[in-house]
Amino acid sequence: MNPLFGEFIGTALLVLLGNGVVANVLLNNTKGHNSGLIVIAFGWAMAVFVGVFSVAAISGAHLNPAVTVALAVAGKFEWARVPGYVLAQMLGGMMGALLVWVMYRKHYETTECADLKLATFCTGPAIRSLPGNLLSEVLATFVLVFAILSMVAPKMSLGAMDALPVALLVLGIGVSLGGTTGYAMSPARDLAPRIMHALLPIPGKRSSDWGYAWVPVVGSLLGATLAAVTYTHL
Amino acid sequence: MNPLFGEFIGTALLVLLGNGVVANVLLNNTKGHNSGLIVIAFGWAMAVFVGVFSVAAISGAHLNPAVTVALAVAGKFEWARVPGYVLAQMLGGMMGALLVWVMYRKHYETTECADLKLATFCTGPAIRSLPGNLLSEVLATFVLVFAILSMVAPKMSLGAMDALPVALLVLGIGVSLGGTTGYAMSPARDLAPRIMHALLPIPGKRSSDWGYAWVPVVGSLLGATLAAVTYTHL
Amino acid sequence: MNPLFGEFIGTALLVLLGNGVVANVLLNNTKGHNSGLIVIAFGWAMAVFVGVFSVAAISGAHLNPAVTVALAVAGKFEWARVPGYVLAQMLGGMMGALLVWVMYRKHYETTECADLKLATFCTGPAIRSLPGNLLSEVLATFVLVFAILSMVAPKMSLGAMDALPVALLVLGIGVSLGGTTGYAMSPARDLAPRIMHALLPIPGKRSSDWGYAWVPVVGSLLGATLAAVTYTHL
Amino acid sequence: MNPLFGEFIGTALLVLLGNGVVANVLLNNTKGHNSGLIVIAFGWAMAVFVGVFSVAAISGAHLNPAVTVALAVAGKFEWARVPGYVLAQMLGGMMGALLVWVMYRKHYETTECADLKLATFCTGPAIRSLPGNLLSEVLATFVLVFAILSMVAPKMSLGAMDALPVALLVLGIGVSLGGTTGYAMSPARDLAPRIMHALLPIPGKRSSDWGYAWVPVVGSLLGATLAAVTYTHL
Repeated sequence: MNPLFGEFIGTALLVLLGNGVVANVLLNNTKGHNSGLIVIAFGWAMAVFVGVFSVAAISGAHLNPAVTVALAVAGKFEWARVPGYVLAQMLGGMMGALLVWVMYRKHYETTECADLKLATFCTGPAIRSLPGNLLSEVLATFVLVFAILSMVAPKMSLGAMDALPVALLVLGIGVSLGGTTGYAMSPARDLAPRIMHALLPIPGKRSSDWGYAWVPVVGSLLGATLAAVTYTHL
Repeated sequence: MNPLFGEFIGTALLVLLGNGVVANVLLNNTKGHNSGLIVIAFGWAMAVFVGVFSVAAISGAHLNPAVTVALAVAGKFEWARVPGYVLAQMLGGMMGALLVWVMYRKHYETTECADLKLATFCTGPAIRSLPGNLLSEVLATFVLVFAILSMVAPKMSLGAMDALPVALLVLGIGVSLGGTTGYAMSPARDLAPRIMHALLPIPGKRSSDWGYAWVPVVGSLLGATLAAVTYTHL
Repeated sequence: MNPLFGEFIGTALLVLLGNGVVANVLLNNTKGHNSGLIVIAFGWAMAVFVGVFSVAAISGAHLNPAVTVALAVAGKFEWARVPGYVLAQMLGGMMGALLVWVMYRKHYETTECADLKLATFCTGPAIRSLPGNLLSEVLATFVLVFAILSMVAPKMSLGAMDALPVALLVLGIGVSLGGTTGYAMSPARDLAPRIMHALLPIPGKRSSDWGYAWVPVVGSLLGATLAAVTYTHL
Repeated sequence: MNPLFGEFIGTALLVLLGNGVVANVLLNNTKGHNSGLIVIAFGWAMAVFVGVFSVAAISGAHLNPAVTVALAVAGKFEWARVPGYVLAQMLGGMMGALLVWVMYRKHYETTECADLKLATFCTGPAIRSLPGNLLSEVLATFVLVFAILSMVAPKMSLGAMDALPVALLVLGIGVSLGGTTGYAMSPARDLAPRIMHALLPIPGKRSSDWGYAWVPVVGSLLGATLAAVTYTHL
């Protein structure tokens, strides 16, 4: 299978399961309504596990533009392949968000709060303060990418055996560093679904909060790059 | 041991532990009363783990007619063996449901709500809308089977080492895609226990909701077949 | 190290961590007060993990008279060694319960409910009905021992690599089959701490419920023996 | 990479993720506010997992002065290297605590309770009784170190493959033995962040509770030494 198709499928699975758990916890009338952070954190961790496990052998399972850029910065991935990977990841993230909307469509209709509907697509800050929010995303992504680089060295791409360690890493980051901005750590997990939120005919939706949209993008790319530079200099 | 007996035992363990956790959470006076989705999702995941681990060496641990059909569609399992496997799985699911009822019998007596009693046997939709509910089951089973095919390729049957990955996959699907219809994804987990609900002398029981019964059956077989076709074409 | 000492240490760790989590959840003023079944179920699972992992290389980590008897019935453990193993396990269970009491002593003082104090030592039925309670313990122990025999065959004793599978098995049984009688499944986990409850000068304690004490003992031995017979005949 | 730098990085990751989950659960307006012990216990367990996994190959991942001292007592680590390791761990713990404060800064501002703010840095007893509290820390650390010594023998330093077992051990100790004093079990996790609490300009902070500060330090060193002596004599 083509690596780009692997990235597309893997990221679609990641966002389908990841945004799916948010929909299950936040939307009305679901079986998981209000089941709490422990459910969300395990949902995202297992989303990573399934995404990585399913496509690791095909594409190395970056599943995140920030990871792809970090590997390129570290000299472990060709810059010429970055645009294709990023595009596949962004399209995968959009597909995943679309499938969540299709699956939970009736629940979007019975949920009144437009903020909650937006939260099933993309992250938002607990306390809005853009410099602080940016710092949160930088730091969370730094930990994510630094730990991944430590885990996978020296091969520098993820294999199926790395699916569980990376999932547990995301579980840990989620419960520990997700309290401020919701640990986006990836444009494919935040910007791509946000675009779908803007495009889809969701009943009673609010604005897609474009004023915040750059924070997870810049924060994740910056954090990942810093991690790659730090890691390669050590 | 005969593979058919392996499928029977494995599916009985799966449904005993899976429906058992639902009984523990939903019925009155239990030690796990109202302990939430996190308990149910881990209960079903561990049910899969125990079922697969216990019989993988004997039968390949399909434990689900949808999985058996998908493997046959993918050309990895002989069609002639499908009826025997499916029958063993259905009988195993009925046995598992019977054992849950035996074990929690006093708690069925002290629970008034007939809907909750039915929910300890089979799934039902959070919002009834049969086309949408069918789509939910198709999508959840597609993810289940597509990921299993990715995980186990190229050998195409489950070994004991696959028990944990498949359990984590079911944990992820449960918390993420289970919010709409309760992630049946298998006739042996839904139709077989539903038949037991109809047959058993449960005090104060309601109808077995036969109008919905076809949804998890058709949805899981359709989703699994689509996954097998998609996977083999890639 | 002597295998008997291994069984003593392993069972003491098992009951210290297992009863410890019950104390943390049930007693007053603790950091885990009322944190629910998910905490208790993971606590017992990790107790099994730590106990098995720590002494598997020394004694094979039975840690439970019912497991020892089942292995003897299955012809995989010499009957002559059974009394020593059982004695070491019972003494280990008493030691574990003693340490929980020492550790949570101030919290026993600030907890008024005598039933809760007893529950930090030994199990009791959610609905008292001795034949049904016995059946619960038989069935839960049958699943425990049947799955362990499937997992460890053909070597018939637990190694460190079995610690996680057995822990996940106990997690699954706990959330699924623990709702009726609290999944004792072992005289060393129930009778031994119950003896300590009778012996220790716990302020404001109730009777040790000797009328129920035989149920987990007989139930676990019967369930384990049935599992061993069933497994060896298949 | 220098082992001392590995200990610094690993301990910083450990405390960042460990104290981070406490901040997420205790501080106001966070996404994980009041999400309970299960979140805290998994957060600390994953903090250990990430810390050990990331630096095991560099320094052996002690990440805790009590572990370093125990290995020295057991004759498995040179005493001459102890001061450097301990210093690196203490600086790492201070760095981790600093990063938590930076990340959750706005949430410290919106949280009124000074006790909760202190709890995001260091532990405190559920019921203050210094001899009992000391005993709790001794016992919890004894279990931690005794089990680690059993797990890693004969090599006596942690490798990446030990990250999950040690994380599950810490999960178990957290839910079971953490109910009394919050399972500090390490000067680098308790004293180092407590020093940061005293140094940082946290709005509305209380005293750093120096009267209790010696308990986790002495308790963890005593428990670890006892475990090492016991283990080597068996």
